Amino acid sequence: MRQAIRHLSVEAPGRGLIEITASVRRFVGEQLIETGLLTVFCRHTSASLLIQENADPSVRRDLEAYFAVLAPEDPDRYEHDTEGLDDMPAHLRAALTQVQLSIPIERGHMVLGTWPGIYLFEHRRRSQQRDIVLHLIGE
Amino acid sequence: MRQAIRHLSVEAPGRGLIEITASVRRFVGEQLIETGLLTVFCRHTSASLLIQENADPSVRRDLEAYFAVLAPEDPDRYEHDTEGLDDMPAHLRAALTQVQLSIPIERGHMVLGTWPGIYLFEHRRRSQQRDIVLHLIGE
Amino acid sequence: MRQAIRHLSVEAPGRGLIEITASVRRFVGEQLIETGLLTVFCRHTSASLLIQENADPSVRRDLEAYFAVLAPEDPDRYEHDTEGLDDMPAHLRAALTQVQLSIPIERGHMVLGTWPGIYLFEHRRRSQQRDIVLHLIGE
Repeated sequence: MRQAIRHLSVEAPGRGLIEITASVRRFVGEQLIETGLLTVFCRHTSASLLIQENADPSVRRDLEAYFAVLAPEDPDRYEHDTEGLDDMPAHLRAALTQVQLSIPIERGHMVLGTWPGIYLFEHRRRSQQRDIVLHLIGE
Repeated sequence: MRQAIRHLSVEAPGRGLIEITASVRRFVGEQLIETGLLTVFCRHTSASLLIQENADPSVRRDLEAYFAVLAPEDPDRYEHDTEGLDDMPAHLRAALTQVQLSIPIERGHMVLGTWPGIYLFEHRRRSQQRDIVLHLIGE
Repeated sequence: MRQAIRHLSVEAPGRGLIEITASVRRFVGEQLIETGLLTVFCRHTSASLLIQENADPSVRRDLEAYFAVLAPEDPDRYEHDTEGLDDMPAHLRAALTQVQLSIPIERGHMVLGTWPGIYLFEHRRRSQQRDIVLHLIGE
């Protein structure tokens, strides 16, 4: 049994879903592990991770619009606004999704299915450098 | 240390929570692993996974009704409707829950607790064949 | 490759976010595992787990207030109320967050980042004794 760990630095230009499937796939491919478990971990609490359909960009636009309404910016609603109006909504949207994913590896590949892609879901308005940790165990 | 992987094909007759605890428990029992980590992964983005109380069916009915209101069908709200009015709400309900679960194994059994069961949360109206991957590592 | 498993008993005085980072960090530190994967699992469906900012307590107050509105207590809304008005909202808030977390271990430490802490998110009004399972695999 072997392990590998790598940090992935993702440039988020601002709010939205940024696909990281190719980078994650490259890391998995390089480890030459046949069967195993991949963990993707986002080291922030105002961005999160999502596995979603990557075929049609309208899915991503609808997802972004939905979470903007579900956890809205509102100057009167939150106590915490240290970093601006988008600070607390970012934490809420991260809490409603998740900061970590577990994906089994079979025959050297993630078992993602036909449509799903892996996304960093950036919740802050301004551009951010995000640190994602990839961990793989298997053989 | 050993690993095992298996695909579970689940027939979802339409929207709702379908308990898969027994099938998952059977897979775990067959591996004869004392201590380990089980991952349950749903290879779709319009269905998800949930650990919830399996004692009272009214919990499941309330859960289904709640998510139907939280991410409603609405012809005017979403851009993406390729597969019908229930297409985008299905993706949203999957994003609000999750498509993967990690459950430790102790003395050969999942540490689920007394009440919890594992459910496939189907979000599409029409019947679907869903592919769930079970991965176990341990010894 | 080695494994360790431990139960953490957490006293929740009632609704709210209870930080368990120190207890989890102690368990990880004792295992002397350099690289690995930590799983935190909550054996209940009316409490959940959350990784969130631990710098400013107002984030926690806003989170609690937000979920209290998103999945409200309401005598007319839910069928399931066996254990009181806070019973079904507790299940819904757990479903919207999650009962399990996966955190990679690097150089003997969780890769949590600067601000994030690990929280038990208690959703019941009355005090509860909660059983959290920690599982670590690595070497």
